[in-house]
Amino acid sequence: MHQETRILLAHGNGGRFMRELIGAIFARHLANPLLDTDADAVRLPPLRGQSVLTTDGFTVQPLEFPGGDLGSLAVHGVVNDLAVCGAEPRYLTLSAIIEEGLEWATLDRLIASFARAAREAGAVVACGDTKVVRHGEGGGLYLTVAGVGELMAQTPPSPHRIGEGDVLLVSGPVGDHGIAVMLAREQFGLSGSLKSDSASVLALTRAVWDLPGLHFMRDPTRGGLATVAHEIARATRFGVVLEQARIPVRDAVTSVCEMLGYDPYYLACEGRVVAVARPDTADEVLRRWHALPGGELATRIGRIEAGKARVTLATALGGRRLLEELEDDPLPRIC
Amino acid sequence: MHQETRILLAHGNGGRFMRELIGAIFARHLANPLLDTDADAVRLPPLRGQSVLTTDGFTVQPLEFPGGDLGSLAVHGVVNDLAVCGAEPRYLTLSAIIEEGLEWATLDRLIASFARAAREAGAVVACGDTKVVRHGEGGGLYLTVAGVGELMAQTPPSPHRIGEGDVLLVSGPVGDHGIAVMLAREQFGLSGSLKSDSASVLALTRAVWDLPGLHFMRDPTRGGLATVAHEIARATRFGVVLEQARIPVRDAVTSVCEMLGYDPYYLACEGRVVAVARPDTADEVLRRWHALPGGELATRIGRIEAGKARVTLATALGGRRLLEELEDDPLPRIC
Repeated sequence: MHQETRILLAHGNGGRFMRELIGAIFARHLANPLLDTDADAVRLPPLRGQSVLTTDGFTVQPLEFPGGDLGSLAVHGVVNDLAVCGAEPRYLTLSAIIEEGLEWATLDRLIASFARAAREAGAVVACGDTKVVRHGEGGGLYLTVAGVGELMAQTPPSPHRIGEGDVLLVSGPVGDHGIAVMLAREQFGLSGSLKSDSASVLALTRAVWDLPGLHFMRDPTRGGLATVAHEIARATRFGVVLEQARIPVRDAVTSVCEMLGYDPYYLACEGRVVAVARPDTADEVLRRWHALPGGELATRIGRIEAGKARVTLATALGGRRLLEELEDDPLPRIC
Repeated sequence: MHQETRILLAHGNGGRFMRELIGAIFARHLANPLLDTDADAVRLPPLRGQSVLTTDGFTVQPLEFPGGDLGSLAVHGVVNDLAVCGAEPRYLTLSAIIEEGLEWATLDRLIASFARAAREAGAVVACGDTKVVRHGEGGGLYLTVAGVGELMAQTPPSPHRIGEGDVLLVSGPVGDHGIAVMLAREQFGLSGSLKSDSASVLALTRAVWDLPGLHFMRDPTRGGLATVAHEIARATRFGVVLEQARIPVRDAVTSVCEMLGYDPYYLACEGRVVAVARPDTADEVLRRWHALPGGELATRIGRIEAGKARVTLATALGGRRLLEELEDDPLPRIC
């Protein structure tokens, strides 16, 4: 149907070219009984549980990287935001801002990847939009996704449920996504076998959201583990102590961080969960996570304590240092 | 709190700079009891009517133009998509992709404008996201909005309800937005007093969605009136006849179109409704619209007829010509 190998401005004009682009890529990959690419808005079948809403924009560069791509990342990002709130993803919206000149085949792969990830998460794309901007006014492709979830957790996780003596858990090693994306950029002249952890955490959260002693969950994306710890400290006014020796970091991540001067605790993850739970519940969370793919390396990494609302790293050598809030950051378009 | 006059990459990194940006602009303008800028997702109070979902990305250039700006346009676009489906807007999401170097004051004005338009439409912003991309990878600011509406129309408008003999109406002059935005771009070397029609059509749709003989509504944005006519022809397999002498086009729009070689029927509107109704209902729709601000110039512009699924323009001179589907279009970033 289409003769072009690259996206043209005319693919965004509302006319025949746009209709063909939507038919050949978006409607084809995302087809489901709800999606009507001719409609302005779609009526949603009612949910039994409470509706939960979230949105995220995705600008990662490069568009494809070891372990993932913009398409699946966009689904995982939104699905994970719902999952850590105790919700199952049901309906997604997909808005694409395409830069003139993007290869047709690249767009096709990314939207196919988006569709696959959505199916795996049990969510359907209910509606979408495409715009084309001139060359030099975009980043190849930006995707923005909104997600409507259905609340499943009986007592939804919330920072306000966190108490003194609670323990911090993480479902797997931190920093993989940040380093994998960085290494995939040519300017660093590095390469390695490290893959992004980009993945849905739905199975992990679903396995534990019936536990009343599970107080809080968050996916440590931009700003990483340290930023989640700061969010907890700000919201609760408690101190957060992270135990350096217990935080799982892959050797490859540690090496690149030492080489380039990064701290892995500030690097983005895209398939991890940080949880805060009562000590007895924490044991049960770990037991369940260890039995699940992606949770094998889950571990206890810290605790909530009375005192100042700050984040402290108990170092491997027995010392303590403050983990400051992230200030400047030389890594744009990490997600 | 902030010392900068322009947006930096660090304003998108998840750390302190981002928190300050969100606090100083987004949380300040968009504040409402539901919005928690620290949360990943938000639980929505249940709606009585069925939920309706839509999304749109907005890339208009320039960011501010006579009669509107990107902020209010983004609200109107999504509100109008819900309104023509017979729904009241309830919850919005707001995702901002900001280009490094955008002036802080510009962003502040645009988000203030977004907030004002949302309040006027009776919708609250439930959640949001901000990303910052490098200079040369964006267009100043791109906004993507998803909207959750509540279905109010008893018999929701749908192209499948359109029948032979139905009448086409438009709520006001066409092409204002397309020409106003074009004139606001320096490269045309033209200026004028023409303003975009960017506005919520909610009052217009709300006034008529109880009428059983109202079969279909659509806001003629990208691709304009002619593209809506083609959508009707494709969906119904009926012919659509537009009467040139009856289609309201402002003199200024006609002049610029003649000068630059555009056809006003393909130009974007951002505050108009095209409706299809039974003849008797059409009279009632016009009566109600004429009494409302923005509906004073509403008029009957065509009809649905048996025969080929095509769009015909009955010219002022008594002839007929086919209005082809929009092909190429030299006007990116019109919305």
